[in-house]
Amino acid sequence: MVSKNALKQLGQLGQKKFRKEHGLFAVEGNKAIATFLAHGFQLAHCFTVEKDSQNSLEAEIITANDMKKLSNLSTPAKYWAAFKLTQPNAFVPQTLNLALDGIRDPGNLGTIIRLCDWFGIYHLVCSTDTVDCFNPKVVQASMGSLAKVHVHYVDLSSFISQHNLVAIGTAMQGENIYSTTLPKKAILVMGNEGQGISKEVNSILKQNISIPSVGSPAAESLNVAMATGILLSEFRRKV
Amino acid sequence: MVSKNALKQLGQLGQKKFRKEHGLFAVEGNKAIATFLAHGFQLAHCFTVEKDSQNSLEAEIITANDMKKLSNLSTPAKYWAAFKLTQPNAFVPQTLNLALDGIRDPGNLGTIIRLCDWFGIYHLVCSTDTVDCFNPKVVQASMGSLAKVHVHYVDLSSFISQHNLVAIGTAMQGENIYSTTLPKKAILVMGNEGQGISKEVNSILKQNISIPSVGSPAAESLNVAMATGILLSEFRRKV
Repeated sequence: MVSKNALKQLGQLGQKKFRKEHGLFAVEGNKAIATFLAHGFQLAHCFTVEKDSQNSLEAEIITANDMKKLSNLSTPAKYWAAFKLTQPNAFVPQTLNLALDGIRDPGNLGTIIRLCDWFGIYHLVCSTDTVDCFNPKVVQASMGSLAKVHVHYVDLSSFISQHNLVAIGTAMQGENIYSTTLPKKAILVMGNEGQGISKEVNSILKQNISIPSVGSPAAESLNVAMATGILLSEFRRKV
Repeated sequence: MVSKNALKQLGQLGQKKFRKEHGLFAVEGNKAIATFLAHGFQLAHCFTVEKDSQNSLEAEIITANDMKKLSNLSTPAKYWAAFKLTQPNAFVPQTLNLALDGIRDPGNLGTIIRLCDWFGIYHLVCSTDTVDCFNPKVVQASMGSLAKVHVHYVDLSSFISQHNLVAIGTAMQGENIYSTTLPKKAILVMGNEGQGISKEVNSILKQNISIPSVGSPAAESLNVAMATGILLSEFRRKV
């Protein structure tokens, strides 16, 4: 039986420093847990309040009260697991690559990881000030796709230069995405929710593009995850 | 000064029956409030905890505690307003139209309203079981775009037939959106988050389309708001 102290430690995995200290991250819900298992992640702990007869997952039964302490959801899922933290596989450039410069909202990062999975982008490059991909809200929003997408935290401008990638930014005055073609070895850079792309990364951009608004007067803006989805859809077809 | 009783009533605007009873809906944040004012919505009440010197909005000062009772946000905005509920303008078909069949998540509806604004779709047609567009979470997620987009709650299949629109659904096995062109007077139909498009509406669809996944194995799915954004981007360019 799991000790009170162990449960307490596992309940701290919402915080990055404790994920690092324990070398673990949390995944909630049997569907997401099954996806991480299927992609070779090592299960360290698995708990449930009630075993599901259709589920072969080995899990220790705990009380609903203990589950509440572990869970980061307002309504906890039936299953909760801790997996060993892993390093991403070495970066392999694809025909289309994606970088995030200072994305702070966990929901946005999770949604973008899910998009990467959909559009076959298996390496996502993030500036070091981008929210941690093992944050439980990111894991949740990625809907299991984090098990398939390798997330790299790097010094963005050095990384882009080292890999000889052509950095393409997004800006209101950029070229219309519907008429632009991307250069080879392009890496799309999406900036912070409020501030956009940082000065340092901005200085190495080869081009800026934008999604034209049809509305008149134009709508304020698109959310960064939505803009990423529209851009990936547009360029996936062209590359 | 606003009475305790009046504040209590205004705090109930999170619930549809009270919005109907009082004929009001709530908007939080001075930017969104300014957008509703600019689009002719009638202000009934406006409160703030602290007047902003750069803001000309007439607002009664209330305590932070009273603001908490009004607000639907975990961290209330500086300004809170109640506007008079309005009926949408008469439906005018555009080259591209959008219908929602049973969308339940307020965040999804708000995001889709924001997308409509971006892509110049000023009439959004919803089945009567779609979440109410004046729900505070919808208003919040729409980022002011609800002030510009007319939302119609109708019997979807009758409405589509009456207006002689060609209904296009989305389904996993549908035609690839990148190679499909839409017929004239098309209305894209997006279905419920879990169940998809209802049987009744499904029976009047002329075509099904899908966003192909590049990933292998394919990712589970795209969120309905994200799929809507990608579809609108794709078809806005073609129509």
